[in-house]
Amino acid sequence: MKKRLMLAGFALALGAGYTLTAFSQVKPEIMVKQRQAAMTLQGKYMGPLGGMAAGKVPYNADTVAFNAAMLDALSRMPWDGFAESSKDAGVKTAALPAIWSEGAKFKEAQDNFQSAVQALVKVSRSGDEAAIKAAIGATGKACGACHQNFREKQN
Amino acid sequence: MKKRLMLAGFALALGAGYTLTAFSQVKPEIMVKQRQAAMTLQGKYMGPLGGMAAGKVPYNADTVAFNAAMLDALSRMPWDGFAESSKDAGVKTAALPAIWSEGAKFKEAQDNFQSAVQALVKVSRSGDEAAIKAAIGATGKACGACHQNFREKQN
Repeated sequence: MKKRLMLAGFALALGAGYTLTAFSQVKPEIMVKQRQAAMTLQGKYMGPLGGMAAGKVPYNADTVAFNAAMLDALSRMPWDGFAESSKDAGVKTAALPAIWSEGAKFKEAQDNFQSAVQALVKVSRSGDEAAIKAAIGATGKACGACHQNFREKQN
Repeated sequence: MKKRLMLAGFALALGAGYTLTAFSQVKPEIMVKQRQAAMTLQGKYMGPLGGMAAGKVPYNADTVAFNAAMLDALSRMPWDGFAESSKDAGVKTAALPAIWSEGAKFKEAQDNFQSAVQALVKVSRSGDEAAIKAAIGATGKACGACHQNFREKQN
């Protein structure tokens, strides 16, 4: 059975006020766990697309469309988990201090990523394989740009 | 800035074949990590709604609508992480053997949960607070029903 995502034309009222109110009660270590969960799942749905764009995984238009849809939601999930109160959560995290000292730049990197994902969602239904692969590349670049500046180097 | 989820009318071709093909290469311990991440985020977006339905958190229609939209995507994410190959992943998991020995029942519990979430998404834009709280309750019940049979008791 196919199920439709029923989010048509749904404007997200995701202002800063909303974020602060909703999450002011969440413990710092839970915030870290939740934002890491969002990153883990971005990896799950981005990984195969990167493989396709690089020609290492067989291209599958349905997988691209589905994964892009999941990334559309996931790209909205990590950011409130970087609230000021999560700065010294006392748990292992690769989050760099620049997240808090360069907040505007961090926000810009989030926006770039979300815009890249939304462009990918749009093009994913076009059937234009070259354009889709380019959009995957742009999304991967947006992931990397944020990691470059705001995540500890990974081994 | 408000951003729209651009998933309007997008039919998800999420058959069993797709799932097996796409994830046959994923290591068992990664599958466990990814499915646990999806559960963590379901908790993140379901928690405040449960609080609202129980009258412990102030009711906020925007939060309900946003969280329901996130749950719509998240409710599709954990299940391929329970592939047969993840049965003995060698990492800590609360997944019970019934997941694999009672596959049809597990699938039914997933479907019930997804249906409850989709009903919540639909009603979340109605402005009918009583109906919305009932839909939250039904979703929570679907979470619990699956945990009851397929997750180790939590302390």
